[in-house]
Amino acid sequence: MGFSSIFVSEALGTGVLILLGAGVVANVVLAKSKGFDGGWLLITFGWGLGVFGGVYVAYKTGGHLNPAVTIGNLFSGAKEYAPGIEVNFTNTVAYLSGQLVGAFLGACAAYVVYKKHFDEEPDEGKKLGVFSTGPAIRSYTWNFLTEVIATFVLVFVILAFGKTPSGLGPLAAALLVVGIGASLGGPTGYAINPARDLGPRIAYALLPTRRAASVAPERVPAGVAAGGAGQRVLEENPGDPVSSTEKNADWSYAWVPVLGPLVGGALAGLVAQWYM
Amino acid sequence: MGFSSIFVSEALGTGVLILLGAGVVANVVLAKSKGFDGGWLLITFGWGLGVFGGVYVAYKTGGHLNPAVTIGNLFSGAKEYAPGIEVNFTNTVAYLSGQLVGAFLGACAAYVVYKKHFDEEPDEGKKLGVFSTGPAIRSYTWNFLTEVIATFVLVFVILAFGKTPSGLGPLAAALLVVGIGASLGGPTGYAINPARDLGPRIAYALLPTRRAASVAPERVPAGVAAGGAGQRVLEENPGDPVSSTEKNADWSYAWVPVLGPLVGGALAGLVAQWYM
Amino acid sequence: MGFSSIFVSEALGTGVLILLGAGVVANVVLAKSKGFDGGWLLITFGWGLGVFGGVYVAYKTGGHLNPAVTIGNLFSGAKEYAPGIEVNFTNTVAYLSGQLVGAFLGACAAYVVYKKHFDEEPDEGKKLGVFSTGPAIRSYTWNFLTEVIATFVLVFVILAFGKTPSGLGPLAAALLVVGIGASLGGPTGYAINPARDLGPRIAYALLPTRRAASVAPERVPAGVAAGGAGQRVLEENPGDPVSSTEKNADWSYAWVPVLGPLVGGALAGLVAQWYM
Amino acid sequence: MGFSSIFVSEALGTGVLILLGAGVVANVVLAKSKGFDGGWLLITFGWGLGVFGGVYVAYKTGGHLNPAVTIGNLFSGAKEYAPGIEVNFTNTVAYLSGQLVGAFLGACAAYVVYKKHFDEEPDEGKKLGVFSTGPAIRSYTWNFLTEVIATFVLVFVILAFGKTPSGLGPLAAALLVVGIGASLGGPTGYAINPARDLGPRIAYALLPTRRAASVAPERVPAGVAAGGAGQRVLEENPGDPVSSTEKNADWSYAWVPVLGPLVGGALAGLVAQWYM
Repeated sequence: MGFSSIFVSEALGTGVLILLGAGVVANVVLAKSKGFDGGWLLITFGWGLGVFGGVYVAYKTGGHLNPAVTIGNLFSGAKEYAPGIEVNFTNTVAYLSGQLVGAFLGACAAYVVYKKHFDEEPDEGKKLGVFSTGPAIRSYTWNFLTEVIATFVLVFVILAFGKTPSGLGPLAAALLVVGIGASLGGPTGYAINPARDLGPRIAYALLPTRRAASVAPERVPAGVAAGGAGQRVLEENPGDPVSSTEKNADWSYAWVPVLGPLVGGALAGLVAQWYM
Repeated sequence: MGFSSIFVSEALGTGVLILLGAGVVANVVLAKSKGFDGGWLLITFGWGLGVFGGVYVAYKTGGHLNPAVTIGNLFSGAKEYAPGIEVNFTNTVAYLSGQLVGAFLGACAAYVVYKKHFDEEPDEGKKLGVFSTGPAIRSYTWNFLTEVIATFVLVFVILAFGKTPSGLGPLAAALLVVGIGASLGGPTGYAINPARDLGPRIAYALLPTRRAASVAPERVPAGVAAGGAGQRVLEENPGDPVSSTEKNADWSYAWVPVLGPLVGGALAGLVAQWYM
Repeated sequence: MGFSSIFVSEALGTGVLILLGAGVVANVVLAKSKGFDGGWLLITFGWGLGVFGGVYVAYKTGGHLNPAVTIGNLFSGAKEYAPGIEVNFTNTVAYLSGQLVGAFLGACAAYVVYKKHFDEEPDEGKKLGVFSTGPAIRSYTWNFLTEVIATFVLVFVILAFGKTPSGLGPLAAALLVVGIGASLGGPTGYAINPARDLGPRIAYALLPTRRAASVAPERVPAGVAAGGAGQRVLEENPGDPVSSTEKNADWSYAWVPVLGPLVGGALAGLVAQWYM
Repeated sequence: MGFSSIFVSEALGTGVLILLGAGVVANVVLAKSKGFDGGWLLITFGWGLGVFGGVYVAYKTGGHLNPAVTIGNLFSGAKEYAPGIEVNFTNTVAYLSGQLVGAFLGACAAYVVYKKHFDEEPDEGKKLGVFSTGPAIRSYTWNFLTEVIATFVLVFVILAFGKTPSGLGPLAAALLVVGIGASLGGPTGYAINPARDLGPRIAYALLPTRRAASVAPERVPAGVAAGGAGQRVLEENPGDPVSSTEKNADWSYAWVPVLGPLVGGALAGLVAQWYM
């Protein structure tokens, strides 16, 4: 399969994943949405079923949708990324670039779906939380370890899927992601996928999410309005580490959900090479 | 297969879908129901498992249950709607009319199941919400785009199902609908199916849902009682865009959940023709 | 297969079903339980997964676990209840009696599991709700129709399962029951199974659930303590139609969840005979 | 297969199980976690999907992950624990020791993932609840019976899995554990696995979970700070039987979730030998 076919397959699949994943967070955190305050289990199902849909869509390339999965396959010593797709430099670039571009486009689509809710939401921190992950308690060391371990589980179990044939198809990956979100998502919001975090973060930085000045300022809650540009308040809302009316893509954290999953995926590949 | 066989299969399947789908909304929003205030995840499971049951019942026709799916198949260039059912004008009409009539009848059955709860519910807006979708924030343009995108995902992934054989059967469609509801249902309540919205809206308009005058008016909450016939209050309850004691099927919105899904389904068929 | 083999298989399977089904209600409604106030979706999953386990256990007899399913098979014109088990009078009695006895024993096992929580629970209405169903709004006519329709869906879809082979096995029945509970369980608590309701109701009547007089009366909430033997308060708690400190198995309602499911199952069999 | 291969397989699989299982409890009960107060259904899904991932990982040994399952197989009269693994003393020891060590290591990994949240949590009872089970109402007799019955259901249904072939693979065990948690987990937190409880309890006793004295004492809620070393308050939080700032692994209860599951598993094996 050629570069562009791999690129398009992974981009479409990852686009569906992020559209549903960002969508469920928007549904739970943005003002007036019908799923507002729907709980963590709803979020984990939204992301898991985003994987479900995305893997079906990216059927031509085995539905990696995640650079950590691709890197995990690479480090496991596999010969093929999917039937007929050799492990080599060009194909690896096709996978990774398709995943990143697809994640960016999926985030833009989620923005369109929830456009009016973004318009009515005063808190930029919640909007960033729709697109990208953030830590519940900021600590680069421990946040990084959390992402490494959670992604290790993801990629290691995926590499084991082939050993216990079942009729579950893409559902196995979906349920695994639900489980990791339920269990290991508490500290960092489980990026476990560099494209899932970086693509939407770029989208957030570029999209006009800031409320127009014409929005009546008296509708902004007092506590939020009082927060100046530099003030950053940690909150307990899922995916909402920063509360502010000032746009801030939190680039200082952005390396954690990129590097952590890559390291976790690579480790999973190495251990799988020894164990499986 | 003849017109009437197609019609009956799709009508029975869509009837089961709407009976369970309208049922779960009734369970969550109507007064005194045991699932009252059960949350968005409960609603998404009710609708998803309605698809599950309905697809089994409509096994003779491939369980479309949705004009957007039928139109998506048409635009994808498929030769058959289901094994042995050619894509042609007559069969298309059989599918679409069966779906619409089945949705109407399923809504009537849900009304019977929750009859006493409709009787005790003062808010006509909630009753309409049991039958049909409504926007959380009314904006015909953006609501339309939301329905287009959500239905695109539905039909595009369904068209991809055949490419990754699994043992999931109707469960794949059910889980996909759970995922779309969880993720993309926030702004409009995810009609993603013209029959699902129009059939029950007609049922709502015809059924005697209005409370009898003999119901003690002092049991109507003050805030609701104060709302006159013309007053329309947006609320955050799932499926409950309009709060009023006056019956109102909100026909001005009705085109959105019909046209949006049809456009989304057709686009999915066209893109699938290029991609798959 | 002989009478006793059928009896034991259905009794064991139905016992597991009721143990998990009554168990989840106990978990959600009884004082101090870890799943207290866990919501309607939790209840529907507990019952659904009770079906899941029970069907596996009753593998020798096709896992009916429900007189409505057996009667539905009878009215559908089937020749066998399960591979090698002819439809005849003796076998029908073996199925039905095994289901009823198994339901009784499963309810007793659930009582043992939650013994200390029954001891600490002052409200007899909640205890009855663990064992048997009750209406949210009492109306024999409409409650009966609700059970007829919900059971019709159950049995009709089960009869359709064989037409769409999947790898789901007992999961299909489990998910169907989750869906019916989510969607149609609001008015009556979805008995949809005469044995599920009658067996545990007999168990409730016989088991020593009443709090010993030695329990400190000041721990009984004032509102409950004030209720005399005859006072019956409708509440919105799942499975808790009656609040009282007086033991009362509500035999006047008991015919609804027995006859309604039998009629619904028989109707499903008749319609299936015509349609499938 | 040799001792070390069995040991490693069961240790890795049980490690994943406990990492996800302890993780979901940490997510729900520890301060500031994104899934805080996420409800009992979230906990049951986290544990169930921990089984899901763990069974895939331990594919070489049939994914027992639980001494009660191994003992159940032993008492059922099976000739092999998994294809190619004879039932004998050495292999039994390999299974059991691998499970215990894996559970210990999985608990340590969960501690790393939630390190900052353990640091900020003042209540040692909640921390113990992340690692091990405890009773909602302490009664050794009835708690023991609850564990016996719940584990009987687990092992008996697992032994029946082979009789109804499906394409569910490890999902069947996962869903069974979700169901048992939903339905029978209320009184004791459903250990249903001696390794699941003992390994993490040892980890809790050894890990430095105690808050450093340098943590500002004014952040400890008054009600908790007032509790002295000996005071033990029963609370309704899942997995949180003991509230104290003093470290206490509750060894007096530890025999219940070890012996109860072993007895339940053995009984299931014996009954299966008669019935299946």
